[in-house]
Amino acid sequence: MMNVYNNPTARELEQVLQRPTHNISDMEDTVRQVFKAVKGDGDKAVRAYTKKFDKVDTNYLQVTEAEIDAAEAKLNPELKQAIRHAAANIEKFHRTQLLNEPKVEIAEGISCWREARGIESVGLYIPGGSAPLFSTVLMLGIPARLAGCKNVILCTPPKATKAKGEGEIPAAILYAAKITGITQIYKAGGVQAIAAMTFGTETIPKAYKLFGPGNQFVTIAKQMALQHGTAIDMPAGPSEVMVVADRSANAAYVAADLLSQAEHGADSQVILITYSEDFAEQVQDALDSQLMALNRKETAHAALQNSTILILDDIETAIGIINRYAPEHLILAVANEEQYIPYILNTGSVFIGNLTPESCGDYASGTNHTLPTNGHAKAYSGVSVDSFVKKITFQKIDRTGLQNIGQTVITMAKAEGLDAHANAVHIRLNDLKNTI
Amino acid sequence: MMNVYNNPTARELEQVLQRPTHNISDMEDTVRQVFKAVKGDGDKAVRAYTKKFDKVDTNYLQVTEAEIDAAEAKLNPELKQAIRHAAANIEKFHRTQLLNEPKVEIAEGISCWREARGIESVGLYIPGGSAPLFSTVLMLGIPARLAGCKNVILCTPPKATKAKGEGEIPAAILYAAKITGITQIYKAGGVQAIAAMTFGTETIPKAYKLFGPGNQFVTIAKQMALQHGTAIDMPAGPSEVMVVADRSANAAYVAADLLSQAEHGADSQVILITYSEDFAEQVQDALDSQLMALNRKETAHAALQNSTILILDDIETAIGIINRYAPEHLILAVANEEQYIPYILNTGSVFIGNLTPESCGDYASGTNHTLPTNGHAKAYSGVSVDSFVKKITFQKIDRTGLQNIGQTVITMAKAEGLDAHANAVHIRLNDLKNTI
Repeated sequence: MMNVYNNPTARELEQVLQRPTHNISDMEDTVRQVFKAVKGDGDKAVRAYTKKFDKVDTNYLQVTEAEIDAAEAKLNPELKQAIRHAAANIEKFHRTQLLNEPKVEIAEGISCWREARGIESVGLYIPGGSAPLFSTVLMLGIPARLAGCKNVILCTPPKATKAKGEGEIPAAILYAAKITGITQIYKAGGVQAIAAMTFGTETIPKAYKLFGPGNQFVTIAKQMALQHGTAIDMPAGPSEVMVVADRSANAAYVAADLLSQAEHGADSQVILITYSEDFAEQVQDALDSQLMALNRKETAHAALQNSTILILDDIETAIGIINRYAPEHLILAVANEEQYIPYILNTGSVFIGNLTPESCGDYASGTNHTLPTNGHAKAYSGVSVDSFVKKITFQKIDRTGLQNIGQTVITMAKAEGLDAHANAVHIRLNDLKNTI
Repeated sequence: MMNVYNNPTARELEQVLQRPTHNISDMEDTVRQVFKAVKGDGDKAVRAYTKKFDKVDTNYLQVTEAEIDAAEAKLNPELKQAIRHAAANIEKFHRTQLLNEPKVEIAEGISCWREARGIESVGLYIPGGSAPLFSTVLMLGIPARLAGCKNVILCTPPKATKAKGEGEIPAAILYAAKITGITQIYKAGGVQAIAAMTFGTETIPKAYKLFGPGNQFVTIAKQMALQHGTAIDMPAGPSEVMVVADRSANAAYVAADLLSQAEHGADSQVILITYSEDFAEQVQDALDSQLMALNRKETAHAALQNSTILILDDIETAIGIINRYAPEHLILAVANEEQYIPYILNTGSVFIGNLTPESCGDYASGTNHTLPTNGHAKAYSGVSVDSFVKKITFQKIDRTGLQNIGQTVITMAKAEGLDAHANAVHIRLNDLKNTI
C-alpha cells in the first residue's frame, strides 16, 4: 500500500521528503475580504459569515452559562471522566515548564533578572468539522491558565440544531473549556473568528496572540492576523508522523500508528524508516488487515498511497533523514533509544518504544499535541506554557555598579557614534565623583 | 521641546500612544525582486546588489581569517577591553536562561520530559549605517552560542575602502564576532543578505531563523523570509522609551535618557510620564541645555518634537498607560519600584532608579538589547537563549503506564471520531491482557 524505497537515491529521497505545496492566492482574496468586513462591521459581519459558511443564524455570539451547564449535564460520564483524567496529566506535565530564573548579580551593584508575564489576551481557535476537537481545548487552555493569561478567548464554529435559531457548540468542547477555566466562548468559526480575535468586535475581544489548528483558510487567516500585528503560535501544515522501527518493533503496532496518522486526512504525511525488507512487508500486511476495520478507511487509504517506507542500512542515515525532514511526530520503535535521542535535533515530539503510541500523547499522557509541522520543527517548538508568556528583563544599578560598568558603556557608545548614550552615563558618573 | 499633556483626555491619549504607520507597498516590490534574483542567481545576485546598493565590488563574500586578525590587530585596545567586559556580563546573564526542566513521572510507567536543542542554523543580521553596531553582534551571538546553535551565520554590509576592490567590515564588528565564536561572516547587507540566508547561496548558508535589526527594507525582507518558511526573532519597528519619573527623579538624568533614545532616529518614540508640572519643566530645560552638545542634535531634536510628556495624577493611571503602550524600554525613575513592578505586564526591559540609564542595558549590564517595539511587547519577549533553542517533548510508556491511561485515550479518540487512534492503544492493551 505504501511506496517502498530500499536505500533511496539522493533524488528519490528529495522527492519523498518534500512537503506538499498549495496554491493559495485565490483563498487569500477570500480571507482578505472577510478580514475587511469583520474589521468594518464587527459582530454583524461575523454573524453574516456564520450564516453563510456554517449555515447557522445566531442571535448572540457568546455562549451562555446555561448552555455550558446544559452541555455538562448531557455529556456521557465516562467521557467526562476521561477528559478530567487527561486534563490532570496535561496540567502535571505543563507545570514543570514554570521555572523561575534566578536573579543575577552581574557585578557588585548590578542586579539583572527576568520575570514572566502571561500574555494578557489570547485567542484559542478550535475547528469544527466532523467531530469536536475537545482535546485541543485542553492542550491550549491548560497552558494558558498556568501562564496566567487574564483573558482566554475561545472561538469555535456552531453547529446547526434542529430547533430553529441558535446553533450549538459540541458538549465535549464546552465541558473541556469549563474544567479548564475558560469562560469567554464564542460561536464563531473559520476566517471570521480569526478576524474577530485580530481586531476585536463589540462582543469578541481582541487577542494579542492566536493559537490553534484549522483548515487552509484558517491557516491563511492566521498569517494575515500576523501581518496585522497579532502574534500566532506557529505556522501550520498537514499532520505528520515518522516511525523508525528496528527488529525490536512490532509490525502490527507500527501499522496501527501509521494508520492513526493516516486517518487525519488524505494529505497526512506518513513515513516509515526500517532496516529490513521483511519487516517492511510485515507492516504492509498489517496495514491491509487493520485498514478494513476503520471508519475512515478511505481517508487513511488515500494518505497511505502517498506515503513511503524507507529501508536503510544504518542508524546514522536514519538520523540524518529525521533531522532533514523534521517530523511533527517521531516514533522510535527501537531497542535502544539512546542511540538516537542525543542526535535528534529536529522534531516536535518523540514517542519511545513499543508501548508508546502517538495517540497517548495526542490525548492524555500530558505532553502537548500542538506541534510544528511542515519542517517547522527546525526552528519552532510545540505549544507549551512558554507560548503563553513573555518575559520582561529588569535591571537595577547602584553607585558601585555604575562605577563598575560606566566606562565600558561610554567607550562602546562613543564607538557606535551614540553620543547621548554615553552622556547618560557620563552625567551620572560626574555627579557621583562630585558627591564622593 | 516636547508636547505636554496635563491629564490627557481619552482622545489625546489615543493620539499620543499611536505608533507611526508606513506605506510599504512600493518597498515590497523591490524586496520581492531582490528575493527572486537571489533565489535564482545566488552569490552572483548578492554581489550585484552589493555593488548597486553598497557601492562595493566584492570578489569574495566570506570574510577571511586574515581579515579578522587584521581587524583585531588594529582595533583600539580600550574598545577591545570594553567589548570583552560587556561580553562577559552578557554571557553571565544569559547563562541563567539555560534551565533544565525535570523529567516528570505522570503516573507509574508514564515518563514525559522536554529537551532543548539549539536551532541548527541561525542567521544574524547586523546593519551598516553611520557607525558599526558591534554591540548587537554580542547580543545575538552570545545567546546563539550558549544555545548550542551549530551554524551561526553573520551578514553585514561591507564599506568601500580606498584600496580598489574588496570592501571591508568594521573592525569592531569582526572583533565582537571573533570573541563570540562566530566564524561564518559574510559581506552582504540589506535585502540581499536576508534573501541569501533565507534560500542559501553557493557561499552563504541557509538559516532556519533570522535575527537582528535593520532599516525598513530589512524589516520587510524579514517578513518575506517568514512567508518563505524561515522563522524570525520578532517583528520590528522604531525604537522607544517610556520614562516614569516621580519626585525622587533627577531631571537632568531623565533628560539624558530621553535624548539617548531620541538620537536613534527622527522616528524614535519618546514618552515621559510624570506627576508634576514643575518636574516636566525642569526636564524641558535640561533637554534644551544638553541637546546642544550632541553630535546628533538634529536627529534628537526632530524626535523630541514628536514626543510627549504626560502629567498624570496617580500611579494607577501610569500603569494603565504603560501596559496599553507596551514600550520597548521602560525607565522607572521612582522612589518605590515595588508600587509598579507587579502590575507591569507589557514592556520589553525595565530600568530601575536614578543610576540605571537605558544605555547600560544597551551595552554592558548583561541584559539583551534586542527587544520588542511597536507594541509587540504585548505578545513577544526580547531576544534570549530561548530565541535560539527549540524544545522537543519525549515520552516513554510501559505496560503499567499504558494500562493506566489506555482507556482514557480510547474514550477520547472515539469521541473525536478518530478510530485508528483508539485502535493503536486497543491493539496493544489486548496483547498485554493476553500475555498476563
